[in-house]
Amino acid sequence: MYDIIIIGGGPAGLSCAIYARRAGLSCAIVERGFIGGQMTTTYSIENYPGIKEISGFDLAEAMRGSAEALGCEFLEADVKKIRDLGAEKEVVCENATLKARAVVLAMGAYRRKLGVNGEERFTGSGVSYCATCDGNFFKGKNVTVVGGGNTALEDALYLSNFASRVTLMHRRDEFRGARHLSRLVLENDKIDVMYDTVLTNITGKFKVDTVVAQNVKTKEEKELPMDGVFIAVGTVPETGIVKDLITLDEAGYILTDETLKTNVPGIFAAGDIRKKQLRQVVTAAADGAIAAHMAGRYINEELSE
Amino acid sequence: MYDIIIIGGGPAGLSCAIYARRAGLSCAIVERGFIGGQMTTTYSIENYPGIKEISGFDLAEAMRGSAEALGCEFLEADVKKIRDLGAEKEVVCENATLKARAVVLAMGAYRRKLGVNGEERFTGSGVSYCATCDGNFFKGKNVTVVGGGNTALEDALYLSNFASRVTLMHRRDEFRGARHLSRLVLENDKIDVMYDTVLTNITGKFKVDTVVAQNVKTKEEKELPMDGVFIAVGTVPETGIVKDLITLDEAGYILTDETLKTNVPGIFAAGDIRKKQLRQVVTAAADGAIAAHMAGRYINEELSE
Repeated sequence: MYDIIIIGGGPAGLSCAIYARRAGLSCAIVERGFIGGQMTTTYSIENYPGIKEISGFDLAEAMRGSAEALGCEFLEADVKKIRDLGAEKEVVCENATLKARAVVLAMGAYRRKLGVNGEERFTGSGVSYCATCDGNFFKGKNVTVVGGGNTALEDALYLSNFASRVTLMHRRDEFRGARHLSRLVLENDKIDVMYDTVLTNITGKFKVDTVVAQNVKTKEEKELPMDGVFIAVGTVPETGIVKDLITLDEAGYILTDETLKTNVPGIFAAGDIRKKQLRQVVTAAADGAIAAHMAGRYINEELSE
Repeated sequence: MYDIIIIGGGPAGLSCAIYARRAGLSCAIVERGFIGGQMTTTYSIENYPGIKEISGFDLAEAMRGSAEALGCEFLEADVKKIRDLGAEKEVVCENATLKARAVVLAMGAYRRKLGVNGEERFTGSGVSYCATCDGNFFKGKNVTVVGGGNTALEDALYLSNFASRVTLMHRRDEFRGARHLSRLVLENDKIDVMYDTVLTNITGKFKVDTVVAQNVKTKEEKELPMDGVFIAVGTVPETGIVKDLITLDEAGYILTDETLKTNVPGIFAAGDIRKKQLRQVVTAAADGAIAAHMAGRYINEELSE
């Protein structure tokens, strides 16, 4: 029986393992894919405070190395289910059932893709899913934001602080986001709004230089010179395996307060998987530290009662 | 007028500056002492995820360098007062009054000292104020915890996971901390409790090897061989200048929720200064990022109304 099983090997899970092992707690990370999570696909991270610039792969590797050196175990497996038996939790995988005193859910989230031509090829070369991460690279440039919810509206406003022009494309004829955000976007001189419009093609040589926008009503297509494309059509938390056990919000994120406790005593959530304000590597790493701390306190104080 | 004035140049303030500048917001850090805050006095930090080992000074310098390269201004001044004029905030220093749209309070907190012989000399060489940070260095060793509140009780329980023996010294004849924590401490085989006891001397050659404990009733003194001393007699948040403006808890910490908003719109709090679960460099850095994000959203969305 482990003290803590951490599900997911991104920055939240790895940081949790580092803090758990330093607190003298046994732990394992169960990850079905790559250790490092979303950040491994990021070419250059320039906003992890204390490190000027690092590839996501190298940052993940540094965190993995620390966790491993401290004695965290790594298991490659796809978790099917989690069973809460009170003082004991079962993590059910295809070929094994693992037991732990506490579980930290750190499976992350993924950005929904548009699925258009050029999107995958230019990801990291003009196509981005995170304005906070990459906006700074587009000073004085032309960028498109695709989407019509709060994130798309906030991204457009955020990007208007750097970009020379922001084109906001939304497939419907009105925004889904909050009314005051819509108003701010419409009043912003640097933002052009294209309703009833979908992005159908992204082209360029080494990086994005042109996008094709199609009006969904007239079917008319327009080529627009463009330096960057920010896709904000939704983020999907990886909460499928816990949806019957853990309280989620309407979008599927895990609800916690600052203590990172879920509705089940002994099960905590950390990183992008939980409902929170800002999803960055540093905020995920902080969550991991807090989850380890709270799980340790739970084991020391509540399970010993 | 700055977009954001950050008061305090520790990891919360520096991270906030990095995120603010990357969001295209003008900002200044006002710090009265050393840039880097508490961490500058830490010889070795081994729990900042992604960096195997670094001195607090070097980590502070790396964060400062990033903030400066991005265009954050640094002002050395002692802030006397903050005035909330609604859409404008005034930061009043001895020789200047600075104006900003938003203010981030990141002045941190300091650990209360015992004031005994050897305490200062052996800080970092056996004397620690943070069990979470330094407990890992004391595997199989004898350690003392000084204090009788929740932190002291939790530190004793936490350290019992590594240390061979934990001696908990408390000057009164019962603990101030929560009853269930007291019970867990008293039931723990690895923890010896010394009531009515103060630590009067810490000695050693290069690091702590002996402490002197005095019974406050009998005045009897006892020499104890000891490898580590964890002082947990309270932490004091640096909230004096905002105590009439900002809502604090009974210990003087700023109350916020996860959005880091204080009771005053446009004033945010980040890092050790606010009421929170875990005070570490990584949690302070995450707070700084969130505070910049929320301050930016406040400026873009609420001030533009």
